[in-house]
Amino acid sequence: MPSDPEYLAGAVDLLGILAYGALTAFERLAEDARTAPTLADKVQIAQLAARQIDHFDRVSERVSQLDSDVMTAMRPFHAPFDAFHAYTAPKDWLEGLLKTYVGDGFAADFYREVAAFVDADTRELVNEVLANEPHADYVVARVTEAIRADQRVAGRLALWGRRLVGEALSQAQRVAADRDALTSLLTGTVDRPGLDLAAISRMFTRLVERHTARMARVGLQA
Amino acid sequence: MPSDPEYLAGAVDLLGILAYGALTAFERLAEDARTAPTLADKVQIAQLAARQIDHFDRVSERVSQLDSDVMTAMRPFHAPFDAFHAYTAPKDWLEGLLKTYVGDGFAADFYREVAAFVDADTRELVNEVLANEPHADYVVARVTEAIRADQRVAGRLALWGRRLVGEALSQAQRVAADRDALTSLLTGTVDRPGLDLAAISRMFTRLVERHTARMARVGLQA
Repeated sequence: MPSDPEYLAGAVDLLGILAYGALTAFERLAEDARTAPTLADKVQIAQLAARQIDHFDRVSERVSQLDSDVMTAMRPFHAPFDAFHAYTAPKDWLEGLLKTYVGDGFAADFYREVAAFVDADTRELVNEVLANEPHADYVVARVTEAIRADQRVAGRLALWGRRLVGEALSQAQRVAADRDALTSLLTGTVDRPGLDLAAISRMFTRLVERHTARMARVGLQA
Repeated sequence: MPSDPEYLAGAVDLLGILAYGALTAFERLAEDARTAPTLADKVQIAQLAARQIDHFDRVSERVSQLDSDVMTAMRPFHAPFDAFHAYTAPKDWLEGLLKTYVGDGFAADFYREVAAFVDADTRELVNEVLANEPHADYVVARVTEAIRADQRVAGRLALWGRRLVGEALSQAQRVAADRDALTSLLTGTVDRPGLDLAAISRMFTRLVERHTARMARVGLQA
């Protein structure tokens, strides 16, 4: 177990974000499964939902190994995640699907970025969670199909994608401002090297670029 | 792969029931998770929901091994399961919890009874699914606690439990009447030994007895 208390606090914060993110993603996907247009879609979305609980369980186990409690670790992130989901409630199944695609993709990119700053065991966990994402193809196929079937859908979904990322970034900013230990995980401390502000800004640029590529993949302008 | 076509049809029916049962249990549990009174309850119920998808995935894989398609295998059971859930929509979180307890318990007992009549690979699958049920303790504790906190709850839940089993048996009867291959899995054929009508009736008696014991465990009269 890593012993630097500030590092530990940052790592537990990060795991708290992953855990609560997975739990709220489960809820959202379960709701999408309920309104899926076909039983085959329902199955696919239910499988995605179940995978979020698998992520939650793995993260939760890692939090215990760090002598913390997952319920406590998640608490600081209830407000930002709940606000994000409240501000981005999908109007229909297709918006829900794009939210899954954009949200999971963004989350995965973020995991990749922070994996460099955590201890080896936590990094391994993050990589396992990332490796476990075989369903993106289904989401891509379904969104692409819907856009092809009705071109007017594209404009609406493009706007929706922008709104999702805008809200995500605004909540991320709120978290960064509130959680010093988490921020110092990225920026480093006297004893631990980290990113300077320019490097953090480049990281955000990369996240937005990857989001743009992801939108392009389904034929949407970011 | 077993070659007797009537046996195969019965086994695929059975797997179709398990698959669609798991899928509808997922939906019900996801809805319960949404209305859970605390985040800790939400986590527990979400984990139960995710486990149903794990069951679905295993059953689905076995259906493929038997050269059938799970979507097709589930189709005959949409109507009875959907009717069961429509007639037993929980009024509150506690009724949902008892439905989980009674429903999963009843399903597990039914799996145990039919496991004797299927091929070794399918039996192994059934046993794996049964072994994977560590959460009953949580449900028992929560229901017992709610009854202790308010004795009037007991009468209402006892009635509710009776209604659940009544509806389940009525839908089971409908399935048995409709699906000859499934019924002959239990009753046997000229070439394969099975249960006679008296033995099937004893099986139903055992299922009801175990339900009674399950209700007694949470302090409810069946």
